[in-house]
Amino acid sequence: MPKATEGPCNVPKPGVLDFINKAKWDAWNALGSLPKETARHNYVDLVSSLSASSESSIQVTPAADRKQPGSDALVVTSQDGITTITLNRPDKKNALTTQMYHDIMLALEAASKDDSAITVLTGNGDYYCSGNDLTNFTDIPPGGVEEKARSGAVLLRDFVDRFIDFPKPLVAVVNGPAVGISVTILGLFDIVYATDRATFHTPFSHLGQSPEGCSSYTFPKIMGPSKATEMLVFGKKLTAREACTQGLVTEVFPDSTFQKEVWVRLKAYSKLPPNAMRISKQVIRNTEKEKLHAINAEESNILRERWLSDECMNAVVSFLSKKAKL
Amino acid sequence: MPKATEGPCNVPKPGVLDFINKAKWDAWNALGSLPKETARHNYVDLVSSLSASSESSIQVTPAADRKQPGSDALVVTSQDGITTITLNRPDKKNALTTQMYHDIMLALEAASKDDSAITVLTGNGDYYCSGNDLTNFTDIPPGGVEEKARSGAVLLRDFVDRFIDFPKPLVAVVNGPAVGISVTILGLFDIVYATDRATFHTPFSHLGQSPEGCSSYTFPKIMGPSKATEMLVFGKKLTAREACTQGLVTEVFPDSTFQKEVWVRLKAYSKLPPNAMRISKQVIRNTEKEKLHAINAEESNILRERWLSDECMNAVVSFLSKKAKL
Amino acid sequence: MPKATEGPCNVPKPGVLDFINKAKWDAWNALGSLPKETARHNYVDLVSSLSASSESSIQVTPAADRKQPGSDALVVTSQDGITTITLNRPDKKNALTTQMYHDIMLALEAASKDDSAITVLTGNGDYYCSGNDLTNFTDIPPGGVEEKARSGAVLLRDFVDRFIDFPKPLVAVVNGPAVGISVTILGLFDIVYATDRATFHTPFSHLGQSPEGCSSYTFPKIMGPSKATEMLVFGKKLTAREACTQGLVTEVFPDSTFQKEVWVRLKAYSKLPPNAMRISKQVIRNTEKEKLHAINAEESNILRERWLSDECMNAVVSFLSKKAKL
Repeated sequence: MPKATEGPCNVPKPGVLDFINKAKWDAWNALGSLPKETARHNYVDLVSSLSASSESSIQVTPAADRKQPGSDALVVTSQDGITTITLNRPDKKNALTTQMYHDIMLALEAASKDDSAITVLTGNGDYYCSGNDLTNFTDIPPGGVEEKARSGAVLLRDFVDRFIDFPKPLVAVVNGPAVGISVTILGLFDIVYATDRATFHTPFSHLGQSPEGCSSYTFPKIMGPSKATEMLVFGKKLTAREACTQGLVTEVFPDSTFQKEVWVRLKAYSKLPPNAMRISKQVIRNTEKEKLHAINAEESNILRERWLSDECMNAVVSFLSKKAKL
Repeated sequence: MPKATEGPCNVPKPGVLDFINKAKWDAWNALGSLPKETARHNYVDLVSSLSASSESSIQVTPAADRKQPGSDALVVTSQDGITTITLNRPDKKNALTTQMYHDIMLALEAASKDDSAITVLTGNGDYYCSGNDLTNFTDIPPGGVEEKARSGAVLLRDFVDRFIDFPKPLVAVVNGPAVGISVTILGLFDIVYATDRATFHTPFSHLGQSPEGCSSYTFPKIMGPSKATEMLVFGKKLTAREACTQGLVTEVFPDSTFQKEVWVRLKAYSKLPPNAMRISKQVIRNTEKEKLHAINAEESNILRERWLSDECMNAVVSFLSKKAKL
Repeated sequence: MPKATEGPCNVPKPGVLDFINKAKWDAWNALGSLPKETARHNYVDLVSSLSASSESSIQVTPAADRKQPGSDALVVTSQDGITTITLNRPDKKNALTTQMYHDIMLALEAASKDDSAITVLTGNGDYYCSGNDLTNFTDIPPGGVEEKARSGAVLLRDFVDRFIDFPKPLVAVVNGPAVGISVTILGLFDIVYATDRATFHTPFSHLGQSPEGCSSYTFPKIMGPSKATEMLVFGKKLTAREACTQGLVTEVFPDSTFQKEVWVRLKAYSKLPPNAMRISKQVIRNTEKEKLHAINAEESNILRERWLSDECMNAVVSFLSKKAKL
């Protein structure tokens, strides 16, 4: 168990955080003698207050603005044999809230049973998906940060399991930059089409975290360990062309014709015999399904521990402080 | 069990089939109340009659023209430490008859025991191999289509097993377009040299079928699932360059110098210590041999079910009808 | 058991060996009736005498010149969060002596426990590493060649096991040509940066040997079996660009800026949260650790048998004779 999770503050003293009220840090530092739950709760409060005014590719949405169930943060349509699930928070770069995780799972469940031949995930606006909305980490339940980490890991695992088990061809239409979880689960998609404007970024180490979405298994398998590690461990951002060369992306299209070319092709594919496509997908995927579930469980467990580590908490504070300075 | 295998006709009504005598369809439609074996047999008769006059990359040879055992549809030669198995039906684009499946297995058995260092599979003429001769599907035994599907799946499984177990370096010299089973087993070859005229095409879904030759396992391993799926599920045809970039092909050569360059290289390789090469190949392959046999068994089982499905029967009729229209 | 290991000489008669004193060969040939241990010992003496004056990319160092424990054949430094292990026999193209195998294992053991974030392996001079120093094969212990082969296989297995188990990000800075074991273990590195002057060469069959360093598993996984086989079975030498395209190398840099660019990047990476990087590496690698140990054991066993085969002994003599003729 890392030191900070057992008690006193060890976030770097201001200087690093000099953009905020030094008094805040002092107040928090004074919490050193409090029971660890209290210290953590205050820690998270700090993170929350720091991030309220920031703008970045990783979105933090004030609770009042968050989409409610039944809102339009996720739009599902179905036509021409294709069910399309669209992330629809363009002003937040399609950052995923906890609610959206649940809504995507419901949408996948419905799509697996409808009469469409192909299911598509895409984003509305300039971004495909900027990853987790950081409010997911700062909205602390009564059980404290341990409870938060535990429930977060369960949600993550359930979410990824739905992609592992999805029974029909699943296509990602990557309309712009992709970050974090939206990148890592691409190894579970059957086709990934990308605009040449897309980038693929998994800055886990920068945030003190570790890979999820089965990427620790699928990425080395797809691109070899030496390219996967630079991405997953050292946070190298790939261009669309690089991601295609390395096999993560099926094909890259010019942004000007991206939507047109991709949908013409998908509509043609959706007319092929649907059972043959579904069964062929399953023949390809079933041999490693059990392994993928085990990998997902392990990744989620390790990430839960990471979320409770000093290193992760410090890295998040440091990240938010840099954002606030911009 | 799909509906049509249990009785009444559900092939799309002419319009789709308007190139043939509508009376034939009506007659067949009228079979709806017959026992399913009879309906199926008539179905197959229809397929057979449709295909008799067609010309396409997938060959259907009238029974009278089919090569007999001991014929020259397969030519085996051995010199310079290299045993070469040549598909020799250039007028039929080297489509594989049931007899050729058996002959190739015998040739591999012999090559595994002769004193050559390397074994090569290639084709005579413009094509490498256009896949299955469709007569393989229409030549119905007394046991009916179930028996046909069962024996076809056994043959397929035995055939692929020989490639999995082949003990020496096995080289594909791909002298032109490759289709179906001739593409899917390439993942079991140790070297694949291709002319730049070659293409690689696996239109399984188009025919209501599913991948074989262990391609459901080897292709995602070689090229990643997102490129393998576009090929195996959506039937995308690859150029030789694409197949090389994605790792299915070792190297591509200009067609004008293909034969010369490839054989110079192979003759040099065949002079290396043969036991070292054989043992090195086995070290590389043995770790997944058991897995490949399991995959092969599963793929063959699923394909047997596919062959008995409405979707497959309808897709084959549709395919043949399009050919006849050309 | 191959014939020669049970008694009489069967190295090709001079002509092949005409560059050496024919009398030597005759003397050795006369050993045919001696117990096999004696014949083998003399065989190795011959190899040793042949190689004493040779110069090649595979180095044979007279015993008197060999680096002692505590010598500077291996240099280990640590700064900026990076521990660097440098092969330092530039006049011998950084060929690995038995002593260097042991020293590298000790250096990895120490690096795994120090407070560095990243560990680097590189070479001093024009070469990265020319593989085994052939004295490793000719320095025969009292137990004879069987004992030599046995202890060699144990050393190889132990050596490779350390790379499999190394707990932190492990980076290869490939500053020039790489041969043999220095190439095969690259599949166990997390990042491989190479100068455009580097080449990657594994001429196992040419020496009657077989792949090690888990390359029989990692190379087909990284580049597909058809490219891995041309390299591991047929000894094709790759350029740095080819090795990068095929996924063995993370990135290639112009030789003129190689050292500068690589170290700037590594210093930046070394500042990332070290626990996150260590844990992320382990998440990526742990799923196949058990399998890699089994592969390593199997490869080492097979190689031990290879070293005792006629084919290997003849190939080594032939190799050395060609060198001496140059």
